Amino acid sequence: MIIDFSQIAEASHPQFKGGEGALNARMYFDGKCRIMKGRLAPGASIGLHTHETNCEIIILTSGTATVLYDGTRLTLHAGDIHYCPMGHTHSLVNDSKDDITFTAIVPEQKD
Amino acid sequence: MIIDFSQIAEASHPQFKGGEGALNARMYFDGKCRIMKGRLAPGASIGLHTHETNCEIIILTSGTATVLYDGTRLTLHAGDIHYCPMGHTHSLVNDSKDDITFTAIVPEQKD
Repeated sequence: MIIDFSQIAEASHPQFKGGEGALNARMYFDGKCRIMKGRLAPGASIGLHTHETNCEIIILTSGTATVLYDGTRLTLHAGDIHYCPMGHTHSLVNDSKDDITFTAIVPEQKD
Repeated sequence: MIIDFSQIAEASHPQFKGGEGALNARMYFDGKCRIMKGRLAPGASIGLHTHETNCEIIILTSGTATVLYDGTRLTLHAGDIHYCPMGHTHSLVNDSKDDITFTAIVPEQKD
């Protein structure tokens, strides 16, 4: 299938995972895999969280973002691919002056 | 972590999954998730295969491609996201006159 994001409404998720501001996202989820297009305004963030049963792949599609990954600070530029394997912890922070946009994939990896 | 594809050599995989020509790809794999940047020349393809233990998400980053998904023909344009859930069958065919490039993610979903 092709995920038609034009048919998925963007929803606002305030303090997502305990972060600041709101995550704005179009999300597809079939119970086994979440595929989303997200946007964070300046100052907004997805809070620190641990991937207990799944992993996450984030492709930054515009802007510059900061990730705290297992206590290490990473800077993502547009086009970069961040991988948080199952069992690891991360956040996503827009500490820039422009919106950031990203595609994120969260596949379940426990039966 | 950030997957640094500039540090991963592109390898050629002739007749990948029984396809035509060669898949050229930079692949990251940690045993739980494969993340790749791939390229198919005109006429090249990844053959039909079923995802028995994992799923696949393909983001077409340039060009136009054809996917045969569970017997249905799909046309992917740059930016489109194709999802092949676990248990389903697909191919990826470059039947255009230009190279296609894509990012693909194949997470294992069976313990």
